[in-house]
Amino acid sequence: MEKFQVKFMPDQQVIEVEQGTSLLKAASQAGIFIKSSCGGKGTCGACKVTVISGEAKSERTGNLSPEQLSRGVRLSCHTFVEGDLTVEVPPESRLQAHQVLLEDANAALLTETSKDLLTYYGYHPLARKVNIRCSEPTLTDNAGDWTRLSIELKRVLQSDKPLTIPLSVLQTLPETLRQAHWDLSVILTDLESGYTVLHVEPANDRPCYGLAIDVGTTTVVVYLVDLDSGEIVDKQGSYNKQAQFGDDVISRIVYAVDSTENMAEIQKAVVDTVNVLIEGILERQSLTSQNIASAVIAGNTTMSQLFLGINPRYIRLEPYIPTVNSTPAVSAREIGLRLLPEALIHTYPSVASYVGGDIVSGALATDMANSDEIILFIDIGTNGEIVLGNKDWLVSCACSAGPCFEGGGILFGMRAMPGAIERVDIDPESLDVKLKVVGKIAPVGICGSGLVDCLAKLRKAGIIDRAGNFQLEHPSQSARIRATEDDKEFVLAWAHQAGGDKDIVISENDVKNLIRAKGAIYAGIRSLLQTVALEIDMIERIVIGGGFGNYLNVHDSVEIGLLPDLPQEKFEFIGNSSVKGARLALLSQKAWNEAADLARKMTYIELSIGTTFMDEFVSALFLPHTDLSLFPSVEGTF
Amino acid sequence: MEKFQVKFMPDQQVIEVEQGTSLLKAASQAGIFIKSSCGGKGTCGACKVTVISGEAKSERTGNLSPEQLSRGVRLSCHTFVEGDLTVEVPPESRLQAHQVLLEDANAALLTETSKDLLTYYGYHPLARKVNIRCSEPTLTDNAGDWTRLSIELKRVLQSDKPLTIPLSVLQTLPETLRQAHWDLSVILTDLESGYTVLHVEPANDRPCYGLAIDVGTTTVVVYLVDLDSGEIVDKQGSYNKQAQFGDDVISRIVYAVDSTENMAEIQKAVVDTVNVLIEGILERQSLTSQNIASAVIAGNTTMSQLFLGINPRYIRLEPYIPTVNSTPAVSAREIGLRLLPEALIHTYPSVASYVGGDIVSGALATDMANSDEIILFIDIGTNGEIVLGNKDWLVSCACSAGPCFEGGGILFGMRAMPGAIERVDIDPESLDVKLKVVGKIAPVGICGSGLVDCLAKLRKAGIIDRAGNFQLEHPSQSARIRATEDDKEFVLAWAHQAGGDKDIVISENDVKNLIRAKGAIYAGIRSLLQTVALEIDMIERIVIGGGFGNYLNVHDSVEIGLLPDLPQEKFEFIGNSSVKGARLALLSQKAWNEAADLARKMTYIELSIGTTFMDEFVSALFLPHTDLSLFPSVEGTF
Repeated sequence: MEKFQVKFMPDQQVIEVEQGTSLLKAASQAGIFIKSSCGGKGTCGACKVTVISGEAKSERTGNLSPEQLSRGVRLSCHTFVEGDLTVEVPPESRLQAHQVLLEDANAALLTETSKDLLTYYGYHPLARKVNIRCSEPTLTDNAGDWTRLSIELKRVLQSDKPLTIPLSVLQTLPETLRQAHWDLSVILTDLESGYTVLHVEPANDRPCYGLAIDVGTTTVVVYLVDLDSGEIVDKQGSYNKQAQFGDDVISRIVYAVDSTENMAEIQKAVVDTVNVLIEGILERQSLTSQNIASAVIAGNTTMSQLFLGINPRYIRLEPYIPTVNSTPAVSAREIGLRLLPEALIHTYPSVASYVGGDIVSGALATDMANSDEIILFIDIGTNGEIVLGNKDWLVSCACSAGPCFEGGGILFGMRAMPGAIERVDIDPESLDVKLKVVGKIAPVGICGSGLVDCLAKLRKAGIIDRAGNFQLEHPSQSARIRATEDDKEFVLAWAHQAGGDKDIVISENDVKNLIRAKGAIYAGIRSLLQTVALEIDMIERIVIGGGFGNYLNVHDSVEIGLLPDLPQEKFEFIGNSSVKGARLALLSQKAWNEAADLARKMTYIELSIGTTFMDEFVSALFLPHTDLSLFPSVEGTF
Repeated sequence: MEKFQVKFMPDQQVIEVEQGTSLLKAASQAGIFIKSSCGGKGTCGACKVTVISGEAKSERTGNLSPEQLSRGVRLSCHTFVEGDLTVEVPPESRLQAHQVLLEDANAALLTETSKDLLTYYGYHPLARKVNIRCSEPTLTDNAGDWTRLSIELKRVLQSDKPLTIPLSVLQTLPETLRQAHWDLSVILTDLESGYTVLHVEPANDRPCYGLAIDVGTTTVVVYLVDLDSGEIVDKQGSYNKQAQFGDDVISRIVYAVDSTENMAEIQKAVVDTVNVLIEGILERQSLTSQNIASAVIAGNTTMSQLFLGINPRYIRLEPYIPTVNSTPAVSAREIGLRLLPEALIHTYPSVASYVGGDIVSGALATDMANSDEIILFIDIGTNGEIVLGNKDWLVSCACSAGPCFEGGGILFGMRAMPGAIERVDIDPESLDVKLKVVGKIAPVGICGSGLVDCLAKLRKAGIIDRAGNFQLEHPSQSARIRATEDDKEFVLAWAHQAGGDKDIVISENDVKNLIRAKGAIYAGIRSLLQTVALEIDMIERIVIGGGFGNYLNVHDSVEIGLLPDLPQEKFEFIGNSSVKGARLALLSQKAWNEAADLARKMTYIELSIGTTFMDEFVSALFLPHTDLSLFPSVEGTF
């Protein structure tokens, strides 16, 4: 097979690939990650690149316009190398490390609440470091090295729990003990079932750390936690490299089950994602992987299975069965994670195929399982999961909201990073627009909170009707409302304002997608309430988690019918509840044990059974809803 | 580096090696294993080969005679390839798979005694197979695969013990369950601490097997045991391939600690040895490694550590500390053994660096820890280990008897295989010799039992005095007694009788070695008795284990002062007690738990402390002993 060189611009990265390689794959090999919402099927158009020079063959052109085609714009997933090439990857086609540090605003709240729960569950990390001094062996005191070490450890730990040592640690033991002159630091797991020695080294006072990891479909976040103090020492997040195989869990599953190679590749992508984050943190903190003794991972069921290399085939096929609800702890060595090789990786248990460990983790962080009040917990991420209940009962469900609140399936959708429109004001008469953009730079696209706001404002300004249809005959006669070849759209920012060659618009198709997404979530809430025969106003507190939830405006959300019409003071935002629960488990054996109980306690309601959800969904496909009496505070605005 | 071809005869094996490779290493690469008692130091002379043609450079010639050198005889460890070569490897220089099947004579005894102990401890194998049927999942009964499987398993096992599943098994679970239509055979460990699923397959009635393995310094023996019936289905033994690195544990340690590569090589040698034995058995029984669910290994402390890849450096250095007394179970995968990858390999706990798991296993098989009688258990192998005691107390020690009872360090020494002289009769007047040879063929050498017999007869015929000095002036004037350049010797078989070109002799040096060996064992017995202030006649039963012990003649052994002078009926031979104890543990969880207690209970007496042992040893360097009153039955024969 002939090989050719592909040069990616503006990175100037050159890579040699075989003839026939897709540009999407070539870019990935060059370390440039391109969006691929549909998983490379050639339908989403997210992976656009421009072929500047050289020979490439395109098999599919999706909805590229003749003008784009003439400029060399191609779908990288269906364009294949036929000679040496130079290809430009525009910013909007790139997966980018987006800013979890945006969440710092909530750090105080996060830490404070966690501390409360830590006090409640008791501080007892899943791994720890103890310093001990063993007596030296003699001819008359000739117990084996491990016997000597374990006797002293048990004395210091004051516990009769089983104490084990993996072979790999045993193999290094004789030299370490003698180099250390029997004056030792021992890092061990501390679980209910017993202790396992992870590492032995000469005595020192270096802290010992753990990782709380949220493996989201779109985003992965890692917190470095000091296991002695419980403090979050550092945090870092990035996109999940699996995004190159599709935006949502379904595309990922479709990709993974296709072949053993795909499965290995998609597992490696997420493990690599986490390893890169770990390495960034280690470098910044001047630590090595030997300092990291434990990790708790929270992710949805598909993410958890992919992370562990377990084929997710049956998650997607009715009756939607995961391989494992409560995953056994595995060693870092087994999955290639850069911690101490024998460090245990604990994966949060899941409730069902579509209510995963991230929701159990979040629910633990809300403390709803100990609450007298009835709490509604909503996690809006790539999917939308809902838990309802209190200390006596919990029900949960998942509604396929789709990725549009994270920018997926929306023409100018993007995540909340610099250039993202997050607030929209539209003058109802002139239709003049005022935007608030993350990072106060020229707008590039629009993120979830911006979309919610936009939807409310479009409706208020009469640009769309309650079903989301565009009103081309708007009294303003504004040029911002216009029809295209096959859609209608509203211009949020003109090309010259956007600093690009295109107007930033929201289309009727975008609006319909958003209405379906918000409708699915509201219908999920209503369906859950019906299974327990409760009314909306019996909800005493609404807790909203998830990266997107963090920036959500309650007033807007109620106005479009995404969230129930309840008093503002009942709403609480807890940010990334998943990583918060992961940290809690990392620091408290009791909390971690509770997680398994919690997962079992959360009754899963399968929305596809019966007609309740579909009926509710159809009723919710209006702004805010078919039944306006459900939204009294909005009703008056018409 | 230039490469040359070496052809080994009479095997006709040709191998290409780099210039400068030793013939010992080249032979090993060609699959021909040459004895190397000294571990390749060029001192033992066991690795003799004859260079028939071609160029080789010898750096050391040891004690080869000018006549041998002129014939092309060389030490293969110190002769290096300098061109294409043809080399003959004589039978006496070869490590050979010797016949454990010789032990079949004891099979009945073995099986019967084990069954008694099995009844006592209770039949409860360390791994088992259960057939279960799970209900198929539905939309309303949507527990994860592992949850579903574990609920049904716990119901069938009727146990609340923890049940775990390794990641590798989990990864195959979803497809297996569905291919099997939820009708399953599950192989799992069944330990006191809990169950671990090792393998899941469609329901079947195939039996499930375990392995009892004795890893001796010289010999490795594997028993295939049906875990349902407890029957020994097959057995196979061979030399330990580590023999190419030296005959005794000290040479092996010296080799292993030299470099990481050596350590890896010596571990691989023993793992390979066991794997070859397993494969032979599997092929013969038409089984695969998936049928083998568990293994119990018994070996001395050095063998156990080398098997597990744990550096044995400190076993050899004062104060002689092993890395581990009670070794954690490891998976077959971790050490590359051909069982089910997740099958657990249990290694017998050791008492000290020189009283290892083989002795604990043997002691368990003797049942001495439950005995009212005072029992003396002696295991005579490459080393000599002794345990004394009853249900209330146990003391143990190791005496460096050396490998001469296994043929090491004796000019014509060999193991009990065809061609080995096992009985010697010498006419006291004419010194005519009658021999009994294993396999009734021409004699090749002399094995342990033959050596003991020979020593007794040499003394009785006045060929040697009580200190082992040869009497060249024997009244018979027989040509069989003769002086050589630097030694004296007695001809057991003339070259023409031996079908070779050399007379088979026993030398004064051989005799002195044997006296030191028997003296060490007897001195060990006396030292142990002294630590508990007992006299020899207070021993109620003497149990002798070990491959060599099996063929030992009690009368001869007492006559040379190897064994105490006690009535014949007090002696019992139990053959390979080590593998017997391994089988017992494999079949009884309680017996296996007992092993750990037993190891702790066996107080180790370090003979190098104080002068007791040395005093006893010096007194025992006579035939039978300096103090003839200790051997009343022998005293009258002078």
